[in-house]
Amino acid sequence: VTALSAASVNTVEPLLQRVLGHEQVGTMPTPALVIDGVQVRQNIRRMADYTARHGLKLRPHIKTHKSTRLARMQLDAGAVGLTVAKVGEAEVMAETGTDLLVAYPTVDPSRCRRIAELARGHSVRVALDSAFAIDATADAARRAGSTIGILIEIECGFGRTGVASPEESVELARRATEREGLRLDGLLCFPGQIREAGDAQAPALAELAAQLEETIAFWSRCGLNAAIVAGGTTPTAYQSHRVKALTEIHPGTYVFNDLNTVRSGNCGWDECAAGIVCTVVSTAVKDRIVIDGGTKTFTSDLCVVARDSGHGLIVGYPEAKIIRLSEEHGVVDVSRCNRRPGIGERVMVIPNHVCPCVNLQADFWWFEPGQAPERWPVSARGRLS
Amino acid sequence: VTALSAASVNTVEPLLQRVLGHEQVGTMPTPALVIDGVQVRQNIRRMADYTARHGLKLRPHIKTHKSTRLARMQLDAGAVGLTVAKVGEAEVMAETGTDLLVAYPTVDPSRCRRIAELARGHSVRVALDSAFAIDATADAARRAGSTIGILIEIECGFGRTGVASPEESVELARRATEREGLRLDGLLCFPGQIREAGDAQAPALAELAAQLEETIAFWSRCGLNAAIVAGGTTPTAYQSHRVKALTEIHPGTYVFNDLNTVRSGNCGWDECAAGIVCTVVSTAVKDRIVIDGGTKTFTSDLCVVARDSGHGLIVGYPEAKIIRLSEEHGVVDVSRCNRRPGIGERVMVIPNHVCPCVNLQADFWWFEPGQAPERWPVSARGRLS
Repeated sequence: VTALSAASVNTVEPLLQRVLGHEQVGTMPTPALVIDGVQVRQNIRRMADYTARHGLKLRPHIKTHKSTRLARMQLDAGAVGLTVAKVGEAEVMAETGTDLLVAYPTVDPSRCRRIAELARGHSVRVALDSAFAIDATADAARRAGSTIGILIEIECGFGRTGVASPEESVELARRATEREGLRLDGLLCFPGQIREAGDAQAPALAELAAQLEETIAFWSRCGLNAAIVAGGTTPTAYQSHRVKALTEIHPGTYVFNDLNTVRSGNCGWDECAAGIVCTVVSTAVKDRIVIDGGTKTFTSDLCVVARDSGHGLIVGYPEAKIIRLSEEHGVVDVSRCNRRPGIGERVMVIPNHVCPCVNLQADFWWFEPGQAPERWPVSARGRLS
Repeated sequence: VTALSAASVNTVEPLLQRVLGHEQVGTMPTPALVIDGVQVRQNIRRMADYTARHGLKLRPHIKTHKSTRLARMQLDAGAVGLTVAKVGEAEVMAETGTDLLVAYPTVDPSRCRRIAELARGHSVRVALDSAFAIDATADAARRAGSTIGILIEIECGFGRTGVASPEESVELARRATEREGLRLDGLLCFPGQIREAGDAQAPALAELAAQLEETIAFWSRCGLNAAIVAGGTTPTAYQSHRVKALTEIHPGTYVFNDLNTVRSGNCGWDECAAGIVCTVVSTAVKDRIVIDGGTKTFTSDLCVVARDSGHGLIVGYPEAKIIRLSEEHGVVDVSRCNRRPGIGERVMVIPNHVCPCVNLQADFWWFEPGQAPERWPVSARGRLS
């Protein structure tokens, strides 16, 4: 068992060569999540520069890395705070001392109590879309003696959360201003349905811009101020300047990138900074090989824009297709490969969707040129509540 | 926020009433994996009785529960040992002091070294399908001064691992007998493709029986003895008596069951012992509600025999369909429901595939009648290597 040969690294994408060339890749326990520090810094820098250039604030979503060390790198590069989905993630990320946004409705008593207690020592905001959530959050804040900032989420086409009309948003905004323990801070939207590449997003983003402007104008006529207008995803991040109303964006995946980002045209192959090193454990079945990662390593997430492309890309073997996952097996069709990975060989897989893969690992391997890789814990792994 | 109303429990399946009726369901942090101890004991007992009745040994696969406490319950009920996929799981389960089978090829040096070291103090077997794995495992056993039992895996239609012919199995078996540190113990097969219900499996199992008999006869002519002939899955478990050659079976999911087991006709609704309690966090979008579990709670696994049935079943709301998962959101179409779950309500979801859901949790809640639920750790959670 050795690290990937130079040939297999060089034939296709130059992706992650810095990692694949490292001798330790040949001996670490697999499946191993490996991260290229050089590329992560470039990804963080590029997003920081873009937002700075356009006068946007950046509050990265930590769902992708779940690491306090990576969060600190983003903050050091100029991020104004962090976005999380769950209160448990906020509790872990509070260690960084920064501003926290829970972009998720706080509804049930346990979650409300914990976020209200966290707000005693930290600047905390939540995004919500119901009177129920406002009342539950306010009750908890009043009991904890803390203040929680409120963003009203508006629905903008993804069909998941958010109120449907400016009128409903004003109703909730007013309710927030009337409740002790809450502070109305603005608006949030999540345009998760926009998956086109770059400029092709222009029409959808123009619609979003119009919706936000209409809402803000209505708030203004009602005497309400949206100091924060937040939104955006990794696919839309570099097009955010098209939506003038936005004051800040919350991309997550950009820090590592994955096949979803590459195949939707929203980053280059060379911008992928994360891979999963697997070992070939069986070549017994004709025209197939088996790697030691399955759904408990990759999840079953398909590539959103290429649902029949299999369960990830094996670097250096572009004709190989990961056709089926069991829990701990990845079955790879190698019938179209001129050169096939051999038994015992280490291969690297770029996953369809990196975020849930990171969540499945206790730690990842951080690679820096000329240094032995280091294990970094996935600090907020599995914080579901 | 309260526990599910009696009405919502009783309208559809009687499933998990013992859990849903418990007042603590109304206050625990969600999403929470909840287990009904009464039903788990019945599931364990039923499988133990079946195997005893047919003179089969039972070596349950721990991939489903990953809990040393549950493993002990299975052993106390008569299981002869435990099956695991990864060496990391074997290391955790070694605490039970029982016989361990790694039903997974040991190929790379790190995995081989660890299993060989474990074999110094424990009875350990591995199933493999290549000369490479035999040599790597033997080298490690020799270095550790231990003995590892070997099962040769034969392919029986699933197309994942296993050698194709009796001749190849004999070649590997002979190689195992020739290597210091190894002990040839028999054969293993995994008929993962058999998904029919009960009696409908008869033709496929007759084929499997013929294949095993042919292989065993060939081994015998070559002077080789298969003391262990292992195989089987939860869907095939209660049909194992149709395959006379089998000496032991390794079902995993039967301990909890899930929609895959129910919808393939291989258990009743009342045999499900695991659910995930979620909170309704948004009802803002028309005809939809959102629960606080997404792919980081349920995974994206679809129901194998009903791929368009959504991402799990909400107990008491059979017309509700979980149509889309984000990482932390479950989007539910409630347009066909006469009565809809309200915001803040706790609902229980039976997952499509329970095994990877358990792996996403740090612990689960164990319910016994009349007692406060107890937290049990998922001891071998995320042991990927």
